[in-house]
Amino acid sequence: MLDRFREECGVVGVFGHPEAANLVYLGLYALQHRGQEGAGIVATNGEALIAHRGIGHVAEIFSKDIIRRLEGQSAIGHNRYSTQGQKTVLKNIQPLVVEYVLGALAVAHNGNLVNAEVLRDRLERQGSIFQSTVDTEVIIHLIAGSQEPMLLGRLIEALAQVKGAYSLVFLTEDRLIAARDPHGFRPLVLGRLKDGVVVASETCALDLLEATYEREIEPGEIVVVSERGVDSHRPFARARQHSCIFEYIYFARPDSRVFGRNVYEVRRGLGTQLARETHVAADIVIAVPDSGVPAAIGYADECGLPFEMGLIRNHYVGRTFIEPQDSIRHFGVKVKLNALREVLAGRRVVVVDDSIVRGTTSRKIVEMIRAAGAKEVHVRVSSPPTTNPCFYGIDTPTRAELIASSHSIEDIRQFLGADTLGYLSWEGMYAFLGGLRQGFCDACFTAEYPVPLTDVEANARQLHLFEARER
Amino acid sequence: MLDRFREECGVVGVFGHPEAANLVYLGLYALQHRGQEGAGIVATNGEALIAHRGIGHVAEIFSKDIIRRLEGQSAIGHNRYSTQGQKTVLKNIQPLVVEYVLGALAVAHNGNLVNAEVLRDRLERQGSIFQSTVDTEVIIHLIAGSQEPMLLGRLIEALAQVKGAYSLVFLTEDRLIAARDPHGFRPLVLGRLKDGVVVASETCALDLLEATYEREIEPGEIVVVSERGVDSHRPFARARQHSCIFEYIYFARPDSRVFGRNVYEVRRGLGTQLARETHVAADIVIAVPDSGVPAAIGYADECGLPFEMGLIRNHYVGRTFIEPQDSIRHFGVKVKLNALREVLAGRRVVVVDDSIVRGTTSRKIVEMIRAAGAKEVHVRVSSPPTTNPCFYGIDTPTRAELIASSHSIEDIRQFLGADTLGYLSWEGMYAFLGGLRQGFCDACFTAEYPVPLTDVEANARQLHLFEARER
Amino acid sequence: MLDRFREECGVVGVFGHPEAANLVYLGLYALQHRGQEGAGIVATNGEALIAHRGIGHVAEIFSKDIIRRLEGQSAIGHNRYSTQGQKTVLKNIQPLVVEYVLGALAVAHNGNLVNAEVLRDRLERQGSIFQSTVDTEVIIHLIAGSQEPMLLGRLIEALAQVKGAYSLVFLTEDRLIAARDPHGFRPLVLGRLKDGVVVASETCALDLLEATYEREIEPGEIVVVSERGVDSHRPFARARQHSCIFEYIYFARPDSRVFGRNVYEVRRGLGTQLARETHVAADIVIAVPDSGVPAAIGYADECGLPFEMGLIRNHYVGRTFIEPQDSIRHFGVKVKLNALREVLAGRRVVVVDDSIVRGTTSRKIVEMIRAAGAKEVHVRVSSPPTTNPCFYGIDTPTRAELIASSHSIEDIRQFLGADTLGYLSWEGMYAFLGGLRQGFCDACFTAEYPVPLTDVEANARQLHLFEARER
Amino acid sequence: MLDRFREECGVVGVFGHPEAANLVYLGLYALQHRGQEGAGIVATNGEALIAHRGIGHVAEIFSKDIIRRLEGQSAIGHNRYSTQGQKTVLKNIQPLVVEYVLGALAVAHNGNLVNAEVLRDRLERQGSIFQSTVDTEVIIHLIAGSQEPMLLGRLIEALAQVKGAYSLVFLTEDRLIAARDPHGFRPLVLGRLKDGVVVASETCALDLLEATYEREIEPGEIVVVSERGVDSHRPFARARQHSCIFEYIYFARPDSRVFGRNVYEVRRGLGTQLARETHVAADIVIAVPDSGVPAAIGYADECGLPFEMGLIRNHYVGRTFIEPQDSIRHFGVKVKLNALREVLAGRRVVVVDDSIVRGTTSRKIVEMIRAAGAKEVHVRVSSPPTTNPCFYGIDTPTRAELIASSHSIEDIRQFLGADTLGYLSWEGMYAFLGGLRQGFCDACFTAEYPVPLTDVEANARQLHLFEARER
Repeated sequence: MLDRFREECGVVGVFGHPEAANLVYLGLYALQHRGQEGAGIVATNGEALIAHRGIGHVAEIFSKDIIRRLEGQSAIGHNRYSTQGQKTVLKNIQPLVVEYVLGALAVAHNGNLVNAEVLRDRLERQGSIFQSTVDTEVIIHLIAGSQEPMLLGRLIEALAQVKGAYSLVFLTEDRLIAARDPHGFRPLVLGRLKDGVVVASETCALDLLEATYEREIEPGEIVVVSERGVDSHRPFARARQHSCIFEYIYFARPDSRVFGRNVYEVRRGLGTQLARETHVAADIVIAVPDSGVPAAIGYADECGLPFEMGLIRNHYVGRTFIEPQDSIRHFGVKVKLNALREVLAGRRVVVVDDSIVRGTTSRKIVEMIRAAGAKEVHVRVSSPPTTNPCFYGIDTPTRAELIASSHSIEDIRQFLGADTLGYLSWEGMYAFLGGLRQGFCDACFTAEYPVPLTDVEANARQLHLFEARER
Repeated sequence: MLDRFREECGVVGVFGHPEAANLVYLGLYALQHRGQEGAGIVATNGEALIAHRGIGHVAEIFSKDIIRRLEGQSAIGHNRYSTQGQKTVLKNIQPLVVEYVLGALAVAHNGNLVNAEVLRDRLERQGSIFQSTVDTEVIIHLIAGSQEPMLLGRLIEALAQVKGAYSLVFLTEDRLIAARDPHGFRPLVLGRLKDGVVVASETCALDLLEATYEREIEPGEIVVVSERGVDSHRPFARARQHSCIFEYIYFARPDSRVFGRNVYEVRRGLGTQLARETHVAADIVIAVPDSGVPAAIGYADECGLPFEMGLIRNHYVGRTFIEPQDSIRHFGVKVKLNALREVLAGRRVVVVDDSIVRGTTSRKIVEMIRAAGAKEVHVRVSSPPTTNPCFYGIDTPTRAELIASSHSIEDIRQFLGADTLGYLSWEGMYAFLGGLRQGFCDACFTAEYPVPLTDVEANARQLHLFEARER
Repeated sequence: MLDRFREECGVVGVFGHPEAANLVYLGLYALQHRGQEGAGIVATNGEALIAHRGIGHVAEIFSKDIIRRLEGQSAIGHNRYSTQGQKTVLKNIQPLVVEYVLGALAVAHNGNLVNAEVLRDRLERQGSIFQSTVDTEVIIHLIAGSQEPMLLGRLIEALAQVKGAYSLVFLTEDRLIAARDPHGFRPLVLGRLKDGVVVASETCALDLLEATYEREIEPGEIVVVSERGVDSHRPFARARQHSCIFEYIYFARPDSRVFGRNVYEVRRGLGTQLARETHVAADIVIAVPDSGVPAAIGYADECGLPFEMGLIRNHYVGRTFIEPQDSIRHFGVKVKLNALREVLAGRRVVVVDDSIVRGTTSRKIVEMIRAAGAKEVHVRVSSPPTTNPCFYGIDTPTRAELIASSHSIEDIRQFLGADTLGYLSWEGMYAFLGGLRQGFCDACFTAEYPVPLTDVEANARQLHLFEARER
Repeated sequence: MLDRFREECGVVGVFGHPEAANLVYLGLYALQHRGQEGAGIVATNGEALIAHRGIGHVAEIFSKDIIRRLEGQSAIGHNRYSTQGQKTVLKNIQPLVVEYVLGALAVAHNGNLVNAEVLRDRLERQGSIFQSTVDTEVIIHLIAGSQEPMLLGRLIEALAQVKGAYSLVFLTEDRLIAARDPHGFRPLVLGRLKDGVVVASETCALDLLEATYEREIEPGEIVVVSERGVDSHRPFARARQHSCIFEYIYFARPDSRVFGRNVYEVRRGLGTQLARETHVAADIVIAVPDSGVPAAIGYADECGLPFEMGLIRNHYVGRTFIEPQDSIRHFGVKVKLNALREVLAGRRVVVVDDSIVRGTTSRKIVEMIRAAGAKEVHVRVSSPPTTNPCFYGIDTPTRAELIASSHSIEDIRQFLGADTLGYLSWEGMYAFLGGLRQGFCDACFTAEYPVPLTDVEANARQLHLFEARER
């Protein structure tokens, strides 16, 4: 039930460039890793908002003709990652576009609100109708229902009511607005073009646009870009920063700078720290590609062991894959990875991954490495055990499905069939990050959720009441 | 500006049949002439509403797989005719589906509201957001915003506020509701299946479903179909009936019964009356196919002249047609019609059409008949001169574009290049219909609009103010 | 087995016009009734042949972009009607394009060869490889394998070997060639544009192109159109003409002139003759639309009975139609036709059709008319009983499936459930056509096949041998 | 002109497995890197050959439904890489399927024939017609035209006439045949399933099918797989082996074993050797991903320098990419790669690539690394200078476009803007490969073409004659 609101995404906005939609398209291209289920762009020529949204990869959705029709000097875009088990439906693909009393409004959202359902219930009781199931629609209703005369006032009023994670980009006929929640869960950066202003989830989008990185949109900041220039607003009380540490561990692109640091460097450093904590006698270090590579390089470097490509990834993997019907095996991992007998046979192998979720994929990887002749397999994970689901915008399975939520490390090692298993310690993780624990949300490791999970609790109460009545 | 709300459409609803969506599909098939731009079906299995909508003809939009996924015992459907000049956009294709406080609701609408813009302005001022530009969305907002506890009460409250033409079909998880405006502008009939109930715009849909025709949904009536049976409600004060006389003249299928009469018979009768009023010495009577055929048969029969197929229609005409670039000619009519030299050459020809709108098509037809060797061309029109646009759901051009709004019959004859031109008289039209003028809306011939054109007036006022300020 | 080679088609060619492909597209549009399964155009700019072929209607296959890419001053096109039971496969869609020793060659074919299989067997034995299953490929192999130095000589040599029906249009980089078999089975006409030359299956294509009709390509004639002008060749011994009488009865468009007469006039005249031969006391005459309409008008006129539209045709019928699963009824006829109770009820009805094939459709139509309340139903057919299949290019079922091949007229009447049944007599048919029996192929009525059925006989022999061996 | 025959490809065949087409699909999936323009599968159920071919990636072309329709126990498949400048046309996508005197035959081909044009000219003169422009069609014509009674005899006769590179897989209703040219230019391996036999271009396909690697199909060998088992034929005189060394350097997947060695190991070893030959003082070693990674790891390991990911590859790059119109920059490289400032800034960087073709891409990469702040950029190439085009199946530009064909290493260094540039020596390359120069074709480095370039020479002669006549 809750799953339907959760999603990972990438957002881009460009203001004041004659080919705004084309630049937004480039930005979405660079942010494709943040969402591959669908994408959309809304552009404005100062008179109307023109939208195109579709299912699939950015390159499949947009053609030259479509980009040409998205005319105007400003545009915003969105890549969407749909959570498993939910049908891909066009109406849930962002940016959302609506008409309300002040005119047309489009919005693209990265993050997840934790009180969207409660707010939606209230709005529906007051007569609102909803066209989609995305939490973002709640924000638009709050804006439309505000009595403030201007959009900025309405936006502030709306954001004061929503809780959770949001990096938002809005577009009207004459303005682009970027906003980030007071805890700064999800990244959002500001850049400059020769003509115009860019905002994007990650700096890799700025790089492709050849925009200059200026700064992060700060937690709790609202940036309004118009003909008059770039205005910054900080209407909310200061909150402690809780940036998502998983952006470093897995989600962001290694060439991006998020939360002030380069992702590759952080991952490599986590690998170095991991090596210090979990050293083992071995012959080679390999990675689970691609996300495990930087940590594996750090690990190998720290240990003085050779880093090798022991697992080869097939990058042509499409969204569909047709298995033989008589197959008892599931191809999940095999289609993407192949183990290199010549590298692995007879060796003691350290295999570095960024995290273990359910454990089933890791188990198949260990099997694959052993089948290629490895003498020993030592699994190393460049983050602490993932014990709790995320409610702030990273798609994770339920607590019950997270192997580390209910199993000891030794249990997990046995499940994986590894000779040894080592996780990075919580302290080690922060040791490397300069002890800045207060800057991050690490609820997936600690269950310390910095913003109360209103919807979850409301559902639990309802369930409880329901169960009570059942008796 | 007003154009964007205007449309002709067909609606179908089936309740209580194991293959409801398939039957609705058949109904839309039979009603394809009422809208060829797009279609949609929403079905319910008692738990959720499942929708599929697309652009094009019914047969292009639905496949066996899609019909199978639209599972459940009840369903509604909609064929849409988009007005010229407006881009075909998926979001405007009905049925609309929303979630509001009482759950999910789908609606299909035939007709046009005349105060939708005024209501929409008010709703937007109160905080509503709109996803589409169709007037139907206003009705849903009024339902969602009502404080009545039950859907029926909310619907009555909503319909009390909207003015204009509507034949509506609603679907919820457990109910199908059909409603017709108090003036009965557009048709809507009720039929019975062995299992279940059907509503549809015209009886030709019942015929294909092998449903029994029961009766019209009456003007101002709301019919609620549920497990408990069929309940009828008449919550509004009685109004004079104003059924659209153009459904007879042009729009409905000749094999349908609408407003209590068979369309073919009415058309044939109008042709008979036309012959009495506009007799001319001639050799043969031909029709502009297909809609002119019944009146031409009536005309020929009354005059004792032979009816011949002097114009042949190409029924394979698609939505796109690629003209040579060097072409000074426009193929508009030529692609659809060809004149039969062997039938026409050397003859005095009466050509019967149902109406003349801009006059440009009729002019080309006269040219074509002459080019095929006709000695004389006598144009006969089985309705009075069309002088005014429709605001109740038939797509007509603006007043300025209607040739009869500003030209005498003699002027029009000259424009067409016809030897003589004869229209059916207004009195003759009703003579045949039994003098029941009070039962019909004939504003397109008389400018007597039975329901005030609120939006048009509001726009005119605004324009006036604007013009005043301009000075 | 033999079925796979049989097909009805339309062909068009344009030489020497700057928008040749666009004009061919118009021609195919006008000839859509001759084949709706697929179409193709091949154009030449003098250097290469460029082809586009697809499945579906002409309007679905070609876009403005595609027409633009088919550049050049000459082009040929083909509409294809695939026989039932054979999967629609792209490779069988014409025009065929090949490279052989003299360069590139494209060909479009209407008709059916009766010795294609025997020739194909011989060619395969000599080492030829075949890419398609259409008989036309045999002609190209014969051309390619000829030792004549020039294309025309090769073509004459090839055509001397094939037997059966063919109206062919060839295209090379600098030439358009049209050829018609010595018996003139299928139509092919020559027209003039202001710039350029046109050939087409029927004159309705010339009308849409605004080309002047010049003459028929004569039976046995080969017309070569090049920069040097139009050259005519008659290399074959004169044969008796055997033009397909079914083009008049059903296949050609009523506004076309084929074999020197207008099709509508012929059909109307057959109806007149039918009335003389099969008069019956009745109240109204109706047609099975659309092909039955001209004969019904002739019939009604001759009898002095009113002609009415008692059956309404739905022209939006698509290629797919999804029936309810629980349906015991088959929608075949119902989807296309609806009966008009108001016209039929209480009346003695004469219903005129052009032919009866299996009888199943006619039976449903009779049922439908009775169900609409007709007091009597008199079926009249404007051709003699269809007793034999066509092997010269009209798709007909096997002899066993033709109801008239094995049933008396009284048997058929009972099967149809008609009160009376009347066919046009063989003599009556020719009476109207001026007694020119010698000019036509009427094998479908008489089993007198003017060209021996080589493949059929070869298959029969093989089957016989096979059966003999079996014993 | 010659270009049109040249292509790189992957082939797969499966015999005797109930889900043969699905396994072939898996194999094509694993071989996607060998051709991304199109793919096809032909399967047989013992009675007919059923084909499906399309444009794009394997995962786009095949659906579950299509795989299901490709029923039967045997199937072959082909991935196609179309050469630049040639339009992607469906008819050129393999496997080719034809009918000839012995029945149906399908073929998939990896490699390039060097006398196809000469043979095609002869065949056309003898009356053959060609449907495609691929050289493979010549082989089928030779088979069809042979007088040998059995397929194997005809195949031997055909292969005796063609010269050049071919790894072929044929399918008939009851047989799968694999053949490799006498020089063994392109790889082809044989594997075993529990049920059935597999052949494939590379072993990575066997791995995904979980087939056991048995051996290479030997140069000059023809393997016939039927119900009777696997028969090997060696009808041709022994020739010196000339396996393509570029399969090691760039083309094959690193986890494959080709020509008896693992590709990753070879690449890593070439990097090691490169380090020995071209050592330079530096801080880090980076690769041009993905193909440069193994050599970079070897290089770094040999030098004792850290290997880092200084260039990040975007793997979501699609076939289309829409550049801004005002762009003076071309995005070619930028879209795929981004440089990591944090890794590169202030460092002396060795960047390892597998080869340099035109030099333009390498130049942009050097720029990108410098722009990210590198102090020095040392380009290292793990193969000798590419000076000559390939005519045996690897797509390379013309000699004139190969930068190393006409420039000194110092010139190239200046063009690239690198501080130093080092290629692997020819001797060094073989030093690592055990001195087996005789086993390889290295014409791209040496211009020593082991099989005479018949078509090239014929064209040159023609050109020469033509030039002679011109004077």
